[in-house]
Amino acid sequence: MKVFSTSLNLSTEERTEISDITKPVRDAVQQFPVTAGLVLVNTLHTTCALFVNEFQGALIEDLRGLVERLVPERHGYRHDDPRYSDCERGNAHAHLRAALLGRSIAVGINNGDLTLGRFQSIIFAELDGPRKREITVQVVGE
Amino acid sequence: MKVFSTSLNLSTEERTEISDITKPVRDAVQQFPVTAGLVLVNTLHTTCALFVNEFQGALIEDLRGLVERLVPERHGYRHDDPRYSDCERGNAHAHLRAALLGRSIAVGINNGDLTLGRFQSIIFAELDGPRKREITVQVVGE
Amino acid sequence: MKVFSTSLNLSTEERTEISDITKPVRDAVQQFPVTAGLVLVNTLHTTCALFVNEFQGALIEDLRGLVERLVPERHGYRHDDPRYSDCERGNAHAHLRAALLGRSIAVGINNGDLTLGRFQSIIFAELDGPRKREITVQVVGE
Repeated sequence: MKVFSTSLNLSTEERTEISDITKPVRDAVQQFPVTAGLVLVNTLHTTCALFVNEFQGALIEDLRGLVERLVPERHGYRHDDPRYSDCERGNAHAHLRAALLGRSIAVGINNGDLTLGRFQSIIFAELDGPRKREITVQVVGE
Repeated sequence: MKVFSTSLNLSTEERTEISDITKPVRDAVQQFPVTAGLVLVNTLHTTCALFVNEFQGALIEDLRGLVERLVPERHGYRHDDPRYSDCERGNAHAHLRAALLGRSIAVGINNGDLTLGRFQSIIFAELDGPRKREITVQVVGE
Repeated sequence: MKVFSTSLNLSTEERTEISDITKPVRDAVQQFPVTAGLVLVNTLHTTCALFVNEFQGALIEDLRGLVERLVPERHGYRHDDPRYSDCERGNAHAHLRAALLGRSIAVGINNGDLTLGRFQSIIFAELDGPRKREITVQVVGE
């Protein structure tokens, strides 16, 4: 049993940008000599999210609509108000959306591959782009 | 230290069906020769959720009410609209509810048992049933 | 590769109390002879949450406002109604907020330290205090 780790670097181009990172995560895992175990994928940021769902264009638009409805931008947040906060990005909504969606996923590894269902993709959501982002891939396995 | 994996198969009978799967997960873990480690439980689907909370009938009704309020069915989603999507199930709400609740849980194993609090249950939510569902149980431990 | 576990005990003083537990988690991890692996941090309760985000006072107020808006207290929940429930705490909102925020986090360990980004803190949310609370810290690593 061993631990392996690496990271993925992304440059996002949009304010909100949702992308399928299953292939780079799979490629990262498969560079390690591991046939069984688990992989933990984390963003190192507080205004991005990581989760698993179907990556279909229409559904991704619905997801974007959902988080905009539940957590509107510029909704009188203290984090966006210079009287209470020294953050000048006006990105409270991005932090709060990340808290709802989660910043980390764990997936089993069996037969040297990710144990994902047919329609499951690992999805990265940039919520305060454009930015350079780093995602860590930590494998524990044998 | 070893990796063990198995899966649980469920047949759900209702459109939305929330069930306590602590016992089958515990039984699956205890069939392996592991006294300490952790277990990762994942659904292989994009319209189910897995989480840990108290499994009490009244509270489960409240949870159902919450997800219906936050993510109503047929709320003009693109995933449900044949102009944008080839999915004929009309299940955008189920995908979005799954994204909010999470599809995976991890629990410690100590003394050969799941490390759960007195009121904690592992809860599976079918959000687009009835369907056949598969849940993977991956153990890393010694 | 080894498994190590310990727990943190907290006494919360407020009804809702959100605190940064990065340091006690880091200290707990660093008492173990582990340079690489992962740590799983779980609450043993159903009315607390654990997640990773920026711990800034203004943002924490916004997070509190978000969960109060999405999941209001005393919103006609069955769990709070003696006709349906024997729970006398009136804490359905706390269970539901915990279900949205999550009760568990996993973080990589590299070079003997938690792999967290510059602005990432491990945040504990008491949602039904004041109470005594226990958080488990389970490490798998080498």
